[in-house]
Amino acid sequence: MQLAFSAAEIAAIIQPLSSKGSTATTVRGIASLGSAQAGDLSFLGNPKYKTEVAATAASLVLLPPDYVGEPGPDQQFLFVDKPSVALARLCARIEQLLWPKPAAGVHPSAVIDASAQVDASATIGPFCVIEAGVVIGARTYVQAHAFIGRNARLGADCWLMPRVTVTTECEVRDRVRLHPGVVVGSDGFGYEFVQGRHEKVPQVGHVLIENDVEIGANTTLDRARFSRTVVGEGSKIDNLVQVGHNVVIGKHCLICSQVGISGSTTLEDYVVLGGQAGLAGHLTVGKGCKVDGQTGVNSDLAPGSFVKGSPCLPYNTEQRLNVLRKKIPDLFKRVDVLESAAGLKKSSAL
Amino acid sequence: MQLAFSAAEIAAIIQPLSSKGSTATTVRGIASLGSAQAGDLSFLGNPKYKTEVAATAASLVLLPPDYVGEPGPDQQFLFVDKPSVALARLCARIEQLLWPKPAAGVHPSAVIDASAQVDASATIGPFCVIEAGVVIGARTYVQAHAFIGRNARLGADCWLMPRVTVTTECEVRDRVRLHPGVVVGSDGFGYEFVQGRHEKVPQVGHVLIENDVEIGANTTLDRARFSRTVVGEGSKIDNLVQVGHNVVIGKHCLICSQVGISGSTTLEDYVVLGGQAGLAGHLTVGKGCKVDGQTGVNSDLAPGSFVKGSPCLPYNTEQRLNVLRKKIPDLFKRVDVLESAAGLKKSSAL
Amino acid sequence: MQLAFSAAEIAAIIQPLSSKGSTATTVRGIASLGSAQAGDLSFLGNPKYKTEVAATAASLVLLPPDYVGEPGPDQQFLFVDKPSVALARLCARIEQLLWPKPAAGVHPSAVIDASAQVDASATIGPFCVIEAGVVIGARTYVQAHAFIGRNARLGADCWLMPRVTVTTECEVRDRVRLHPGVVVGSDGFGYEFVQGRHEKVPQVGHVLIENDVEIGANTTLDRARFSRTVVGEGSKIDNLVQVGHNVVIGKHCLICSQVGISGSTTLEDYVVLGGQAGLAGHLTVGKGCKVDGQTGVNSDLAPGSFVKGSPCLPYNTEQRLNVLRKKIPDLFKRVDVLESAAGLKKSSAL
Repeated sequence: MQLAFSAAEIAAIIQPLSSKGSTATTVRGIASLGSAQAGDLSFLGNPKYKTEVAATAASLVLLPPDYVGEPGPDQQFLFVDKPSVALARLCARIEQLLWPKPAAGVHPSAVIDASAQVDASATIGPFCVIEAGVVIGARTYVQAHAFIGRNARLGADCWLMPRVTVTTECEVRDRVRLHPGVVVGSDGFGYEFVQGRHEKVPQVGHVLIENDVEIGANTTLDRARFSRTVVGEGSKIDNLVQVGHNVVIGKHCLICSQVGISGSTTLEDYVVLGGQAGLAGHLTVGKGCKVDGQTGVNSDLAPGSFVKGSPCLPYNTEQRLNVLRKKIPDLFKRVDVLESAAGLKKSSAL
Repeated sequence: MQLAFSAAEIAAIIQPLSSKGSTATTVRGIASLGSAQAGDLSFLGNPKYKTEVAATAASLVLLPPDYVGEPGPDQQFLFVDKPSVALARLCARIEQLLWPKPAAGVHPSAVIDASAQVDASATIGPFCVIEAGVVIGARTYVQAHAFIGRNARLGADCWLMPRVTVTTECEVRDRVRLHPGVVVGSDGFGYEFVQGRHEKVPQVGHVLIENDVEIGANTTLDRARFSRTVVGEGSKIDNLVQVGHNVVIGKHCLICSQVGISGSTTLEDYVVLGGQAGLAGHLTVGKGCKVDGQTGVNSDLAPGSFVKGSPCLPYNTEQRLNVLRKKIPDLFKRVDVLESAAGLKKSSAL
Repeated sequence: MQLAFSAAEIAAIIQPLSSKGSTATTVRGIASLGSAQAGDLSFLGNPKYKTEVAATAASLVLLPPDYVGEPGPDQQFLFVDKPSVALARLCARIEQLLWPKPAAGVHPSAVIDASAQVDASATIGPFCVIEAGVVIGARTYVQAHAFIGRNARLGADCWLMPRVTVTTECEVRDRVRLHPGVVVGSDGFGYEFVQGRHEKVPQVGHVLIENDVEIGANTTLDRARFSRTVVGEGSKIDNLVQVGHNVVIGKHCLICSQVGISGSTTLEDYVVLGGQAGLAGHLTVGKGCKVDGQTGVNSDLAPGSFVKGSPCLPYNTEQRLNVLRKKIPDLFKRVDVLESAAGLKKSSAL
């Protein structure tokens, strides 16, 4: 990251409510309050770090409007409604510098079937393979080594990073970002046990990725047995997640890394799944549910549930059981004492 | 999926035992009983959905021979021994339409060493790399971006999907299907701790994949430290699974998504591992064992075991303990009451 | 593995302290004591297999200096300080035979930006994409289908296997080995929730991989939100691991397969994480900590801790609780008996 902004340039991007102090230092980095040095921009994103503001060496600090305090010498405070949102806006500008949109056009090494329709404003990188009947929308950027199978469709303003695979018949709508190694449309895991062997159940459905979805590196999404597997609008999926066949993920869900969702399970909107959580198949997880990391879900969850543990329980129940668990050795001793007092042998000795 | 079959065409594929009613509607989709509409085919694969048959809007319904009921207007029932097997047969036909076998031959962009032996009936896709000494059997289809390392062998009728890697010396036998991103033959994770550093133990064995194996997207299989890592005939492995070095997987096993099998562990035949299960190294899991999802296995399992939990216990024991666990807060209260009745203080206060 | 060594050639590589017996058999394989046959080399790496030495059919056996026993006919014992280290040295020689360093140079199919600086002694394989401003050091081998993004730097003597992705601005130092499908520098998983939608927080930092790191197949490492994600010198990471944004992994750590490390967590040096362990974000795991497989870590760990369970406890505590857990059904019965003796009803009936 080779950024170099003056305080004035940053103020122009962030548009603060107000400002205190001034700095002549060029901003070349972003750092947390504790680790920032002169030349860095920092920010108070979480009130628990409030006391670190006074001591930070950052040249520019983004602060909420109610922060009380004075900048040091050659230091400037910028007051904004939400420092972390303001920072995101600045990072978006930096991102454009880091990853400038390449010129439209098809790299000469790409192999594109004559029947594919690639919008003239799209960019297709080196060694991409675009099969027959594929449609690719306006301004979509397909980076190196991507594979887009027969009749698959990509909407507008998508970004497929290197080595993404979208298999035959799958559909990706607009403004979708797929990270390196994502596989959209591998076969679902379905077999019938016939005469001592697992006979494959062909998986002839597809995958639909709606608008504004982002999917992390090396995540896999299986095509439906029939009909389709769906990732709803605005949902975000982290790295190394497994989405089984016929899963339906609602809108605006967050799925953290290494989650596994078994076949035919439905997530309603605004569900959050913590890292390494596992969901059995054929379940419905209600709107707004939160599932803690490493949790195992084996039954339907009512809307708004917050669960933890494997098998899962309501979060507060699970937390209480985890506290009591540590007292179980003591409980055994207490029962020993009671038995002695009652003149009883331990039942294990009966 | 652009299917369009008449009822007669479907009957010709499925060959029902008998039939009731008739439909003139063209079948264009497959759906579950509850979600099917006119123009869909549906099926009763699980008796628990029996009551949904009467209300389904599907035009064609596959039913077991003992189903009692009458089709609606413009609806046809087809009776078959096993509806889900009949459906699989239909889907296999659809699959051939979706993914027609490409013509034999080597794409001009592929890089193939002069010493590799590629059968004349095999198909090699764009941007494949086939190194020296590789042998590829009859009718095998190696899709785009595959890498086949020095001296590796692929048998007949295999299908390697885009971006599969098979590294040097590994062997894949006949009718094996490898999904996008599979890695066969990464190094095992082996180090010796010498003078404060982890020194690599070179991994010079290979991986053997026997006949009729299927392996899911982005799954990784490590080469043996020496000798070989094996996946036995007919075993099926889902996405994002880790198979460590020197693991031996028996015949006809099912390994669900995100399972991890540590080095030198052996699965005998017909083992089933649920999603996210983890197995320690150097274990033997006996024939026909079932391991529930998220289970942790730290010791050998006798043939036919069914285990759950981390660390695992017999399934029924674990289920009972999970029920009792919810009563533990109450148990603490009961011991409080007993102590009061006995005039004892809690031992925690002693 | 087509090895063929005489006993004398192996002694020349291993340089034993002393030797007993002799063999004229050519060594063509390596096997464990129990499975070795004539023509194999075997070794006593773990004292628990000591009794297997007398019966092994191996032609050559590596043994510790204090082993007492005599070789059979046509069998030779080689005594070495550490048999497994001696074996590693032999395997390193075999590895060179299996994977000879290719000649320096760039494959004609590679797409390399004119501004990239590739050392003349480096090797770039087919279908690699090397973007603008990339620097690649001496003797580094970038195998087929690799993608190296704008301004990324690779040091000397690295080996990037097929299909590795190193995204823009990331830095890989010397003697680093990246297995097939590794992604260095995918975006971190960061969003702000604004008006019912998850707005992306651009991730504009990078990833730094220090010297002598090895990273397993299909593992993903996210770039920092800003500043950098770090893997420290000599650390080894297995397959399918997730390393979140701004994670800092210290020196000489071992991270087993399918571990997930959430954003901004720091591992100090010499940490060992067992397979499928999950770490929450913003934690510090102290020097030399050991985390058992499938463990969930939700709070900081003091240096030298050894933990197990989810949520984790000290290893011995967790093991004791796991033993007591099996006695809980009995504990319920004992409390029933106490209540009867005391003339109390169960509190659940109160």
